[in-house]
Amino acid sequence: MARKNAFYAQSGGVTAVINASAAGVIEAARENKDVIGKVYAGRNGIIGALTEELIDTSKESKSAIDALKYTPGGAFGSCRYKLKDLKTSQREYERLIEVFKAHNIGYFFYNGGGDSADTCLKVSQLSEKMGYPIQAIHVPKTVDNDLPFTDVSPGFGSVAKYTAVSCREAALDVASMCATSTKVFVMEVMGRHAGWIAAAAGLAKEENDDAPHLILFPEIAFDKAAFMKKVQATVEKVGYCVIVVSEGARYEDGTFLADAGTTDAFGHKQLGGVAPVIAQMVKAELGYKYHWAVSDYLQRAARHIGSATDMEQAYAVGRAAVEFAVAGKNAVMPTIERKKTKKYSWTIGEAPLKKVANVEKPMPRKFISKDGFGITPSAREYLAPLIGGESYPPYKNGLPQFAKLKLAPVAKKLNDVFDV
Amino acid sequence: MARKNAFYAQSGGVTAVINASAAGVIEAARENKDVIGKVYAGRNGIIGALTEELIDTSKESKSAIDALKYTPGGAFGSCRYKLKDLKTSQREYERLIEVFKAHNIGYFFYNGGGDSADTCLKVSQLSEKMGYPIQAIHVPKTVDNDLPFTDVSPGFGSVAKYTAVSCREAALDVASMCATSTKVFVMEVMGRHAGWIAAAAGLAKEENDDAPHLILFPEIAFDKAAFMKKVQATVEKVGYCVIVVSEGARYEDGTFLADAGTTDAFGHKQLGGVAPVIAQMVKAELGYKYHWAVSDYLQRAARHIGSATDMEQAYAVGRAAVEFAVAGKNAVMPTIERKKTKKYSWTIGEAPLKKVANVEKPMPRKFISKDGFGITPSAREYLAPLIGGESYPPYKNGLPQFAKLKLAPVAKKLNDVFDV
Repeated sequence: MARKNAFYAQSGGVTAVINASAAGVIEAARENKDVIGKVYAGRNGIIGALTEELIDTSKESKSAIDALKYTPGGAFGSCRYKLKDLKTSQREYERLIEVFKAHNIGYFFYNGGGDSADTCLKVSQLSEKMGYPIQAIHVPKTVDNDLPFTDVSPGFGSVAKYTAVSCREAALDVASMCATSTKVFVMEVMGRHAGWIAAAAGLAKEENDDAPHLILFPEIAFDKAAFMKKVQATVEKVGYCVIVVSEGARYEDGTFLADAGTTDAFGHKQLGGVAPVIAQMVKAELGYKYHWAVSDYLQRAARHIGSATDMEQAYAVGRAAVEFAVAGKNAVMPTIERKKTKKYSWTIGEAPLKKVANVEKPMPRKFISKDGFGITPSAREYLAPLIGGESYPPYKNGLPQFAKLKLAPVAKKLNDVFDV
Repeated sequence: MARKNAFYAQSGGVTAVINASAAGVIEAARENKDVIGKVYAGRNGIIGALTEELIDTSKESKSAIDALKYTPGGAFGSCRYKLKDLKTSQREYERLIEVFKAHNIGYFFYNGGGDSADTCLKVSQLSEKMGYPIQAIHVPKTVDNDLPFTDVSPGFGSVAKYTAVSCREAALDVASMCATSTKVFVMEVMGRHAGWIAAAAGLAKEENDDAPHLILFPEIAFDKAAFMKKVQATVEKVGYCVIVVSEGARYEDGTFLADAGTTDAFGHKQLGGVAPVIAQMVKAELGYKYHWAVSDYLQRAARHIGSATDMEQAYAVGRAAVEFAVAGKNAVMPTIERKKTKKYSWTIGEAPLKKVANVEKPMPRKFISKDGFGITPSAREYLAPLIGGESYPPYKNGLPQFAKLKLAPVAKKLNDVFDV
């Protein structure tokens, strides 16, 4: 096999451990120098391939690449940019081929979620449809945990851990003060249309009266009467009530709770955030003093409380992608396979991109309790091992020390400018 | 000295390490059994003394008390309840004496902020003014860091660490995506009228272009034009802009930015949170895509990333309070004294409650940069050691294991019911 260079790009919303996948790709490629030349990373994801802004990862030291394992965010830059089908986006695919050809790129590693899997699939077809030989491997990543075929999406375990830990901690704060102060605390979490992250908060609960007392899932239409009844019953019994709400929570008709009609002084639609909407609703209906939190990016960047399991899996899928490429594979994605052992264990599996692309894995209804406000034992069994182990970054002067890369640009070989 | 029991109560907003002070009080009291009998904790703070709801801490195991050192929130319950002067609140002080007398209480340890120091001072005067012999020692605590005479208020270092760590992490997330997505990220922090917590976020910045790029302090009147100019310049130069805003940020005329006029569908005043107000303002003025976070209680409960220095100091002031009592002192507060060593070191000092009560320590103007949007080297020098060291709680199944107390009630000796 003639030695070719590889292209690696990060795509879509970043996670606390996407850089661990980058480290996996780069380290495995370095161990396979007979097959893979250099790994060029796209600056700001696939956009870097289109604009020929490539980063030469061979200029990075071993320790810098190692530091990626505990550095949140996307070290090479990510983007939200979706290539359409080969026909509609023909000029862009042609451009990719020009850039790949100019830099002798034969391997395409794309680190992203469902949309990116689709792009990766299309790149994998360039060989057949446009005559450019390339192997495209998708490296799974998303905090939303909605990728199919893999037991879990790397990135999810860490946000899940942050959410469960934060919920348990904040609940102790609320419990302390509820006699004379805040009685209802609303904590908003990410997850888009899937309730995986919200469900993970449920792990904070050990005993019946523990927080979270209610979880609002996007999968369950919001029933205001049932909700208020349970909030009131909880405050009356426990003294306070902790509510976790998914950003995607919605009414029966599909309207997001976050869009519930608040306007600011300028007449703009409300400032965003479903937590304040819920909190205000409880106050109006039941009169309880409330507080709310929207941790937003803090949750998916919270590498300081990363899940060791998640970090190891993110790293492993990066390595596996390279091993798949070296083995001559194309249009596949490494997956996490849960083994049927009593103690949690996992191995790397493989899924064809044709089946992965654009398919969302919904949270099973059996993971949500009958009343719609909690998680079931089977959800707990699925979720618990994913937050296992604490992967702490190194600290200096009280602050985490994250990777500092050189991000050395690869000299451009094409003369034209490509607008994206 | 006849052996007397002690009363301990937590007061006001709780912190990630107030329970470490409780552990300090209880452990030191156990070591001084010849002087101090049992330590009774007030259920929900001083209210527990008034209603005679006392918790017998002698029923707690050594390991349970040890676990308090890494358990956030107020393990015995706290409250916002201020006793007025001896004349106005005479019935309440008489009631305290009744309860203290009934339970042979001769030591009063009050763990709180400025308001609580005032209550503690008044209790210390019961001996002289109402003929009941008692020694009252205040144990300092507040995330707001506004207690005078002490170099730092225990509780502050941990929220400061959480804030700086979270800001650094979230900034990496924003940096990854700014080419095609969010350009402005607004992170709201606590601190009431003082900018200490906001200032601590400034520790995340190491190089000139690092986040946070702007900090909005309560101490500096908001200048919209200067703010917008700097936000725009930052986005143009760095590609994105991270703004930390104190909940107490305000306009020249004293109006809080958080009160800036948004109303919801019901015509209520806006749902709270200055971060969304700032974010929306930037969008309206400069058109940048934004995200915002309000971590609220998550920040002051974040024991998972507690400052080791803060934890040690919180524990030490608890122990010192007991040692002061044993030494026969009254109406004092142990303080943290920074030593004049090159490497940060500290010792326990002592301040008279008369001077502490109701005095707020403002952040010095010299800690804020000339343009009003950042911190100075002297602020950095003051703040940096306070977040030093990582104090991690123990974990089981991926979750922190916090103290589980028995909270055994002390049998009531008074027959009446006291309404608070």
